[in-house]
Amino acid sequence: MNKDLDAFFERVITVKLPEDRNSIDIIDQTLLPGTIKRINLSTREEIWEAIKKLRVRGAPAIGVSAAYGIAVLANRIHSNDFDAFYVQFKDIKDYLASSRPTAVNLFWALNRMDDTVIANKDKPVAEIKEILFTEAQAIRDEDVAISRGIGEIGFRLMEELKVPGEELGIETHCNAGTLATAKYGTATAPMYIALEHGWEGNDMHVYCDETRPLLQGARLTAFELVNAGITTTVQCDNMASILMKQGKIKIIFVGCDRVAANGDAANKIGTSGLAIIAKHYGVPFYVCAPSSTIDPNTPTGNEIPIEMRDPEEIKSMWYKEPMAPSQAEAFNPAFDVTDHELITGIITEKGLCHAPYDEAFKKLGII
Amino acid sequence: MNKDLDAFFERVITVKLPEDRNSIDIIDQTLLPGTIKRINLSTREEIWEAIKKLRVRGAPAIGVSAAYGIAVLANRIHSNDFDAFYVQFKDIKDYLASSRPTAVNLFWALNRMDDTVIANKDKPVAEIKEILFTEAQAIRDEDVAISRGIGEIGFRLMEELKVPGEELGIETHCNAGTLATAKYGTATAPMYIALEHGWEGNDMHVYCDETRPLLQGARLTAFELVNAGITTTVQCDNMASILMKQGKIKIIFVGCDRVAANGDAANKIGTSGLAIIAKHYGVPFYVCAPSSTIDPNTPTGNEIPIEMRDPEEIKSMWYKEPMAPSQAEAFNPAFDVTDHELITGIITEKGLCHAPYDEAFKKLGII
Repeated sequence: MNKDLDAFFERVITVKLPEDRNSIDIIDQTLLPGTIKRINLSTREEIWEAIKKLRVRGAPAIGVSAAYGIAVLANRIHSNDFDAFYVQFKDIKDYLASSRPTAVNLFWALNRMDDTVIANKDKPVAEIKEILFTEAQAIRDEDVAISRGIGEIGFRLMEELKVPGEELGIETHCNAGTLATAKYGTATAPMYIALEHGWEGNDMHVYCDETRPLLQGARLTAFELVNAGITTTVQCDNMASILMKQGKIKIIFVGCDRVAANGDAANKIGTSGLAIIAKHYGVPFYVCAPSSTIDPNTPTGNEIPIEMRDPEEIKSMWYKEPMAPSQAEAFNPAFDVTDHELITGIITEKGLCHAPYDEAFKKLGII
Repeated sequence: MNKDLDAFFERVITVKLPEDRNSIDIIDQTLLPGTIKRINLSTREEIWEAIKKLRVRGAPAIGVSAAYGIAVLANRIHSNDFDAFYVQFKDIKDYLASSRPTAVNLFWALNRMDDTVIANKDKPVAEIKEILFTEAQAIRDEDVAISRGIGEIGFRLMEELKVPGEELGIETHCNAGTLATAKYGTATAPMYIALEHGWEGNDMHVYCDETRPLLQGARLTAFELVNAGITTTVQCDNMASILMKQGKIKIIFVGCDRVAANGDAANKIGTSGLAIIAKHYGVPFYVCAPSSTIDPNTPTGNEIPIEMRDPEEIKSMWYKEPMAPSQAEAFNPAFDVTDHELITGIITEKGLCHAPYDEAFKKLGII
C-alpha cells in the first residue's frame, strides 16, 4: 500500500458513503481545479442538483452516486409495509432519474437498485434497506475492480517500456480518471496502479491534452495527477505532434465511451487525431475499456451516432468575452471514432485485446 | 473587380496611408473579433505602442506599418540639412525598432528605408522625404504582389477540385490572412483571389482551426472570412480528424514562418499534426510561402529553433479564472516543423513547388 496515494484518494475520490449513512460525500467538480471542496448531499434535492449541475460527472461516478444516494434516501422511508415503502422508493427513483436524462449509467444503477428491491420484496423493509446499502457498495466495488484490472494490464505495458533512471512519458486525453469513476479511473488506472506497485510520482511524466472545448484534461486530469504526486504537464491538443516528434511520449492511454464489435472506439473529440499522429510516430496507443463499454450490437464505428453540442462551448464558454465572430458557425462534435486499425490494443478488465478485435472479444467472453 | 471585396478590404485591411500622409491608419487587432475599430497613429509613441501591444501583427503587416510610419515621421523633420535630417531619422528608426525586438520584418523594413535615405543622400531633403513615401509604398505593393501570386496558384488548385453546385471545403490554421499582411494574406490569398475571379462566398466553406492557445484562427481568420462574405466555420484544433473523415475538407492551405532548403516548414503550433492527419485521409496539404521565407541557410527543419512561450497562455489567458492546476507544468511551443514528406506542395509567388523541394526551389531561382 501507498500511504500518500491512500491520502490522495481520501481527499479526491468522487463519491463516498459516510459512516452514518445519512448523506453522500462528493468532491464538487465544478470548483476544480481552483478549489478542493467536499460537500455532503443529504436531501434528494441536493443529490438531484449535484448530478444535474455536473458537480459529479463521469458515467461510473454518476452510477455510484445514484446508488449510494437512493440507498440513503430509502433508508429514511418511514414504513414497514412493503407496498408503501416501494411507492416512496419509486418516487425517489423517478426523481433522481430526471436529473440527467442522457446518462445511461444513472438509469442502469437506479434500475439495478430497483431490481434488488423487487427481488427481496418478501423480506422485512428494514432488511431491504440494508440490502440496498450492500448493493450500492457492490456497484462501487465492481467499478473499482474493473479499474484495477485495467490498471494492472496497463501497468505491465508501462513496465516493459520503462528505462531505469528515466521518467516514462505518457500522454492522455480528456478525463478518464478518478473523478469519472469510483476510484482508479480507466485511462489513469495504470498510473495509479504503478504508484501502488512502488513507482514514484516522477518515475512517469504524464502529458495531459487540455481537451477543448470543455478542458477536462486541464481542469480534471491534470488536477488529479498533480494531487497524486505524479509529474504532470498540460499542453494544447495541437501539441501532440511535436511532443511525439521530440520523443517525449512512450505510450498513450485513453478512455472510451463505446467500442464497436470490430474495435472501433468512440471517445472524446480529438482522440482519433491523436491516434493518427501516434501511428505516424510509432507510439503505442491503448484504449482502456471496461468490458461493459464493448457493444456487440454495434458492428463498426459507423453505427455510433456523434452528439453535436452547443457552438458557444467553442466560441464563448470560459472566456471573458467571445473569441470568435458571432456570424461564424462552429462545428462542435462531442466525440469521434478511432478506427480499430489505429489502436495498438484495447485493455479490458478481462484481458488485453489485439486485432482482430471481434475474435479477441469473443475469446474473453465479452461479446 | 468585386465591389463587395473592395469594400471589405477598405474596412479590414491592416494598414493604410491616409491622403494627408500625416498618420498611419490601422485596424486595432486587439479589439477583434468583437469590435472593428480603425485608429490613426500620428506620433512615434503611438506607432511604437501599436506594434508593441500587437494592435498590428503579422510579419509583412508590421513591415509595412513600420515603413509607412517612418515615412510619415521623417516627413515632419524640420531640417533641410541632410546630416541634421539623418540624425533625427536614425533616432526615429532606433525608437521604432525597439518596439518588438523579435520581429525580423520590422528591422528589414526599417533598414530598407534607411538604405533608401543613404542611397539618396545627395538629393534635397524634401525630395528624400518623397522618396521615402515611394519606398514604403513599394514595400506594400511588393507584399500585395507576392500574396496575389500565391493566391492565383492556390486558386487554380481550388478550381481543379471544385464540384459545380457544391461548396469546396477548405481548412486553414492560425492566421495567415489579410490581417497579417498588406492585403490578401498568404494562406487566405487563394480564397480572396477566388472572389476576385467571380466565385461567390458560398462557393467555398472555410473551416478555421481556432488555433490554441492564442486563438488566431477563431479571433482573426474567421473574422476576416465572414466579413469577406465567405462561408466560415470555426472548430477546435482537435476536430480536424473528424472533419476529414466526414469528407468535409478537400484542400488545406497554411502559412509558414520559415521553410528549410529541403522543404521542412515551420509554422504555428499544430500545423504538423494537421499535416499528418491530412496525409492519413489523403487530403492535399499546401504551404503558402513567400519566397523570402525559404531559407537556403537552413538545410532542414531540425535547424529551426522552436520558441517556447509563457505557460500561462495555456493555463489562464483569456479565461475568467485559471483552467489548469497551478502545480501542473505547461508545454507551450509557439511553432512546430512539418516534415517535407507531409507537404503536397509549397506555393510561392514564383511558382508551385513539389518534392524534391531543394531542386524545385533552385529551378525557380529561390535558393
